[in-house]
Amino acid sequence: MLGKYRALWLNKDGFLEVIDQTKLPFEQQSKVLKTTDEVVEAIKDMTVRGAGVIGSVAAFGIYTAAMELNESYKVSSSEREGSLGYEKLQAKALLIRESRPTAVNLMWAVDKMMEFLKNSNDLVNDAKRYAIELNDKEALESQKIAEYGCDIIENILKKKNKTKINILTHCNAGWLAVIDEGTALAPIYEAQRRGIDVHVWVDETRPRNQGASLTAWELTQSGINHTIIADNTGGHLMQIGEVDMVITGADRVSANGDVANKIGTYLKALAAYDNNVPFYVAIPASTFDFDIIDGLKDIPIELRSADEVRCIKGVDADGVIREVLITPKDSPAINYGFDVTPARLITGLITNKGVCEADFDKIKEKFIVEK
Amino acid sequence: MLGKYRALWLNKDGFLEVIDQTKLPFEQQSKVLKTTDEVVEAIKDMTVRGAGVIGSVAAFGIYTAAMELNESYKVSSSEREGSLGYEKLQAKALLIRESRPTAVNLMWAVDKMMEFLKNSNDLVNDAKRYAIELNDKEALESQKIAEYGCDIIENILKKKNKTKINILTHCNAGWLAVIDEGTALAPIYEAQRRGIDVHVWVDETRPRNQGASLTAWELTQSGINHTIIADNTGGHLMQIGEVDMVITGADRVSANGDVANKIGTYLKALAAYDNNVPFYVAIPASTFDFDIIDGLKDIPIELRSADEVRCIKGVDADGVIREVLITPKDSPAINYGFDVTPARLITGLITNKGVCEADFDKIKEKFIVEK
Repeated sequence: MLGKYRALWLNKDGFLEVIDQTKLPFEQQSKVLKTTDEVVEAIKDMTVRGAGVIGSVAAFGIYTAAMELNESYKVSSSEREGSLGYEKLQAKALLIRESRPTAVNLMWAVDKMMEFLKNSNDLVNDAKRYAIELNDKEALESQKIAEYGCDIIENILKKKNKTKINILTHCNAGWLAVIDEGTALAPIYEAQRRGIDVHVWVDETRPRNQGASLTAWELTQSGINHTIIADNTGGHLMQIGEVDMVITGADRVSANGDVANKIGTYLKALAAYDNNVPFYVAIPASTFDFDIIDGLKDIPIELRSADEVRCIKGVDADGVIREVLITPKDSPAINYGFDVTPARLITGLITNKGVCEADFDKIKEKFIVEK
Repeated sequence: MLGKYRALWLNKDGFLEVIDQTKLPFEQQSKVLKTTDEVVEAIKDMTVRGAGVIGSVAAFGIYTAAMELNESYKVSSSEREGSLGYEKLQAKALLIRESRPTAVNLMWAVDKMMEFLKNSNDLVNDAKRYAIELNDKEALESQKIAEYGCDIIENILKKKNKTKINILTHCNAGWLAVIDEGTALAPIYEAQRRGIDVHVWVDETRPRNQGASLTAWELTQSGINHTIIADNTGGHLMQIGEVDMVITGADRVSANGDVANKIGTYLKALAAYDNNVPFYVAIPASTFDFDIIDGLKDIPIELRSADEVRCIKGVDADGVIREVLITPKDSPAINYGFDVTPARLITGLITNKGVCEADFDKIKEKFIVEK
């Protein structure tokens, strides 16, 4: 069952295995994560990234932590199954929960898992079962996002009386980011299935280039037409009418509909607004953080290493992956990982429960009751 | 006299010599341009770049072409000094004029030189003299821009009751771009002279990274505080109040005040407008193209090689300059060199004749009469 999740899976020894996304698009390698520390490190160093996949890895990370406790503490059967085992697991869960600050799915997945496991008598097996359940649920959500999003694509084509759609996306919100098919890219995969002529403008998404390295690679795997552009280019493309819609993912959406997503999303939203290009954000409902009302004011923004701006990785003419410095060696840099796009610039949120305006009351009506 | 222009100079043999900007910030090397072809190639491959410096090189390129004709055709004295020499020079001038499509200074400088030389009896020496004159004039313009621009900086600080100014700039419009001190960076150099605490946010400016490689290097040379950021970051910095003003250069400004500048400028102008951050464009009057009324509609945008997006140059750990591929090898890319920022987003044009609104009537009043 889990084999179909391509960004992560349980291997034949029962350990969590993930695609090493830091090696893409140059090499396809996987990493086995056998300890909590390895799970935390994989999230921190972006071996795994993308809001959903971080959540998925965190869920299986709880299972990994449970196995590790079982193994290393050699606790007695009664202890393992009782409250002491749960408390020890909770300490490990906290490490996972704090591995990255902006992604709400991470916290959501850890909290959900720990809530499930509160009264468990078999932490290891229950954690495994719950993690698989959570992931199956997310895969279904991705499929719903695909369908609702593709309906919008069809409507835009109909309204414009066109047969080919040009979609701009920022960063990576495909199957490397959210199982099974991602969020922002899910409607694009669905469009391909429905036989729509789709072309994707792929923002390279500096500093880590998730667009140029991950989204472009994903689309190549599926044979979907795409063109990589510098992050600076989207505005011009919109001005000359070459973008029919924008779809991005999100790392966190506040109750008022403000969207925290990869740094630079806000600039594309401004350009879309200025050129009457529909700007959609595709998310599973778990991306909402209802504890935050005003996203622009209150969503914390992760500050990452300046070296991600100063250095870049690629392959040289001999096929060797190399990191090179691209700035003067003494110039400082700063690296905010995300920005917040105000709700007023967003045409709609494509969710697993349908399309919703980025508006406090509409979001409340549709989601908060059901939470 | 010419020695003080640091991006280009006449060497002791009388040939045009330029800093090879493709090697910066890693190595400081110069290139001697002895033929028209070498001048054209240096402009095309961006050994020299920046609106003003391209114009300066073009002016000295006419002198280079005149020397080359003198040498290679071995024309008789009467021919050389007569209309035949001029016609042959004009053919070479056309090659220089067409080496890059967006920069109006290039065309302006070539046309100005050829106009000067129309009745010349000594093409080589007159070309040299006129090129030096043109460059001296531009250096003076740069100084005026510095002063008018720095007055704005002082006003902003006064209004905000602050002592430190944070200025965001895109691409490179310093002394590597326009002699003597650039356009966008000239007010910053002047601020340093006036003892103002100035800090510059340097957009790295993909795909060619002129910000990270040239602007950061220039500022390092002068000991001016700066921080390199991914092009995606400026919007967030403005949202959190960390940008007091934006100053960019321009490659061409239409009669209605629309500004063609490095791709991505438009996105920063949108963000500045959205956050009430003053957005200034610093230009010598020669950057106006009065033949174009509507810049958004009619300024041609240069399409450059996709490999500038797909590959990047840096130094590895051993100090070797290497170019690496940063995308999947089969993914296509597209590379628009410029975009056009509509006049409505621009607070003002800082020119050598004072600050002017980006408005058709105001521009006409201030500049067209004098042209």
